[in-house]
Amino acid sequence: MPSTARHLYEELAEDLTGLIAKGTLRAGDRLPSVRVLSGQRSVSISTVLQAYLLLESRGFVETRPQSGHYVRSTRLALVPEPRPPRLSSTATKVSVSDLIARVYGASRDPNMVLLGGGYMSPALLPTERLNRGLAAVARGAGGAGIAYDPPPGLPALRRQIARRAAECGVALRADEIVTTVGTMEALHLCLRAVARAGDTIVVESPAYYGVLQLIESLEMRALEIPSNAGTGIDLGLLDAALRQPRVKACLVVTNFSNPSGALMPDEAKRELVRRLAKRDIPLIEDDIYGDLHHDGARPRPARAFDRHGLVMLCGSFSKTLAPGYRVGYVAPGRYRDAVERLKFAQTVATPTLAQMAIADFLENGGYERHLRRLRRAVADQVARVSEAIAEHFPAGTRISRPRGGFLLWVEMPPGRSALELHDRALARGVSVAPGPIFSAKQRFTSCIRVSCGYPWSEAIERGIRTLGEIATGL
Amino acid sequence: MPSTARHLYEELAEDLTGLIAKGTLRAGDRLPSVRVLSGQRSVSISTVLQAYLLLESRGFVETRPQSGHYVRSTRLALVPEPRPPRLSSTATKVSVSDLIARVYGASRDPNMVLLGGGYMSPALLPTERLNRGLAAVARGAGGAGIAYDPPPGLPALRRQIARRAAECGVALRADEIVTTVGTMEALHLCLRAVARAGDTIVVESPAYYGVLQLIESLEMRALEIPSNAGTGIDLGLLDAALRQPRVKACLVVTNFSNPSGALMPDEAKRELVRRLAKRDIPLIEDDIYGDLHHDGARPRPARAFDRHGLVMLCGSFSKTLAPGYRVGYVAPGRYRDAVERLKFAQTVATPTLAQMAIADFLENGGYERHLRRLRRAVADQVARVSEAIAEHFPAGTRISRPRGGFLLWVEMPPGRSALELHDRALARGVSVAPGPIFSAKQRFTSCIRVSCGYPWSEAIERGIRTLGEIATGL
Repeated sequence: MPSTARHLYEELAEDLTGLIAKGTLRAGDRLPSVRVLSGQRSVSISTVLQAYLLLESRGFVETRPQSGHYVRSTRLALVPEPRPPRLSSTATKVSVSDLIARVYGASRDPNMVLLGGGYMSPALLPTERLNRGLAAVARGAGGAGIAYDPPPGLPALRRQIARRAAECGVALRADEIVTTVGTMEALHLCLRAVARAGDTIVVESPAYYGVLQLIESLEMRALEIPSNAGTGIDLGLLDAALRQPRVKACLVVTNFSNPSGALMPDEAKRELVRRLAKRDIPLIEDDIYGDLHHDGARPRPARAFDRHGLVMLCGSFSKTLAPGYRVGYVAPGRYRDAVERLKFAQTVATPTLAQMAIADFLENGGYERHLRRLRRAVADQVARVSEAIAEHFPAGTRISRPRGGFLLWVEMPPGRSALELHDRALARGVSVAPGPIFSAKQRFTSCIRVSCGYPWSEAIERGIRTLGEIATGL
Repeated sequence: MPSTARHLYEELAEDLTGLIAKGTLRAGDRLPSVRVLSGQRSVSISTVLQAYLLLESRGFVETRPQSGHYVRSTRLALVPEPRPPRLSSTATKVSVSDLIARVYGASRDPNMVLLGGGYMSPALLPTERLNRGLAAVARGAGGAGIAYDPPPGLPALRRQIARRAAECGVALRADEIVTTVGTMEALHLCLRAVARAGDTIVVESPAYYGVLQLIESLEMRALEIPSNAGTGIDLGLLDAALRQPRVKACLVVTNFSNPSGALMPDEAKRELVRRLAKRDIPLIEDDIYGDLHHDGARPRPARAFDRHGLVMLCGSFSKTLAPGYRVGYVAPGRYRDAVERLKFAQTVATPTLAQMAIADFLENGGYERHLRRLRRAVADQVARVSEAIAEHFPAGTRISRPRGGFLLWVEMPPGRSALELHDRALARGVSVAPGPIFSAKQRFTSCIRVSCGYPWSEAIERGIRTLGEIATGL
């Protein structure tokens, strides 16, 4: 295992969490002031501030203006994180589609409490500004607005994507980028560019069901490597996996993975890239959640450490701006030509006006300001939902501690069936994503993914209480 | 061969064409008045009118207001249609991508005379109204505008597609339709739903290069059956093709095929559907040009004759409204569930606001009125370009006589290389699509496809003169 250097503030936050878990600090207690703690621990003011922010984003602490930092919940601090799955070293023919169809087919009811799908609420997105922007672009674009915008896609948008990539440590030229119909088309293009039916794709476990469904539909095999909630895909197990026959790619959500929330530290990313490069195996990197860090700086994509054109970086604006605009992108490294050709064969072009509107928003719309607000909102929702789960779910439940994104991974005590929970919850008007859809082997039978994409409300509280009741009675 | 019943007016038009070809009627001659000819031939007034319309759409006749119908060109009438290719009964691993990339990579120059790509000029599309409509929809849609619209896609749009299908003889319910990112995604979904790598797809020859590229990218094989310019895919050769191993689908542009312009008569469509059904093989029907008939009624899709859910009807609004909106659809018959799942895995959803804007235009925007104008414009362009080709290309050149769409298929005298023509033309600022990209076997070495999607202009005239000069010197 590579060293996964921890920051001082992370160590400090962990110490304080320990004090909360042991009951030394209790709900309602005021934490030492930043200045005092800084003196006590001989760390900088900024380290303490970062530690408090982290505790806040994890739901342990709340900030009261003009007053200080207070312990919010002792219950959550006592809840451990889910465990990674055990290793299984065989590649699996995937067949999650039936299960996904069963889960998602039932959840189109508008009265449903939606804790299942990974959707961000339009209430948190710059809906009005984006739609007004699209309207303005549409009125002004003339023929260019209705014409095809052939691959690689709109230059203005690709320039903005390159500029933002540079800000998180990825040197990209606009002409290295191909725009796509969302991240899913980007991942699809990457898989098709580097692998074919019968080939094996190394994925983390748990993995996003959409990716498993994609691998299934391409008749490829998924080789699942346990993902550690803290550091992501287990690098200690990677080499053995890569030695298996017909491994043609590794597909990982490096930042705030879906559903585990795992964030790979820079060192782990560097190591992952290095080990894959040694065997000339491409990394398909899904960075769709990277802009949604709850604290600290925007984490770097693994692409930042790529020296061989082997990291195919995929992303989109579906979680931070407008899912329905269907605008994503891929920087396919050395596979650029293949990806561009496949893009033309698959969907010819990415929607023109939507690309223009998003390029314009990135340039002039205050995307950074919006992201700051969105991150705070999302961190708050994750904290509240975590706390409610800690309160209502049976003892022995484990909850992930994501430091970005808006997805929680919840492991119920052994023997409780997530599918059973899903069915009963649906009958009571609550949708949730059951663990087995996140595994080609349909593991995670007692896990669920809970989405925190909607602002906290009574309906959500009721939904979680309902889930907790059902889970307790299973 | 099935009987391909010809209408009286078609026979009359052919008689008159013969008189022009023989020189009995010369350029500038006035044709008999409708009433007189009706009396001479003992046919109805309407039959004569239809025959004159057909001759007009073929470029042989022009109508002078308050005066009558005049012979426009004797030259074109003397030019025969291209011949179908000879049969080759082996399925081919497709590899046209390199050729297409070579052709299209070079033609992104904005100063190029674009006779290559199958694009409709924004000047002929309701650009302003559509963009204004999209702007209005964007301003009013709120959160629904930026949210995902999960498969099967926007109900309002699917209702409009179903309504229009009913008008050309296809009984479809809205819930049988899945919206897609243009026709190419629809075809892609169909191919993936019914076939896999190594399987064989029966296609007409010549075939649209995008489809060949798609088949290539899916590692399927294309079995090419000669297409007759008049009646489409040769049904006399179909049965032998269907007896070959691993034939999993037949993919045909039934109405105004690309590039041949072939229109299958109803009887031929019925027979095609019947023969495929006998072997339980699905027909993937690409009807993207069906709304662009130059004369008569909108031709029916083959789906109108399907009784077994085996015809997967694909279409879009990319040739008649807005290519850049990327909105198409598929009615996948009995493969609906598979297609809907693949759609989710491939691109998650079709752009929301673009679907709304097109649904609105279909309901309130005067689509029929727009189509009437567009058809006239397109017929006129096809006639003018045909005439210019007849004038400037070397003797022995053959030109297709499409009765819909905006593509001409031109066969130069044997031995002249379309690729050579393409390269030299590009160097002189004219892009054209060379024949070999329309065949998995890279036949049609002396054919080119000329697109008439742009309004007649001096630049286009100059472009065709240039092509003719090069062709003459080859």
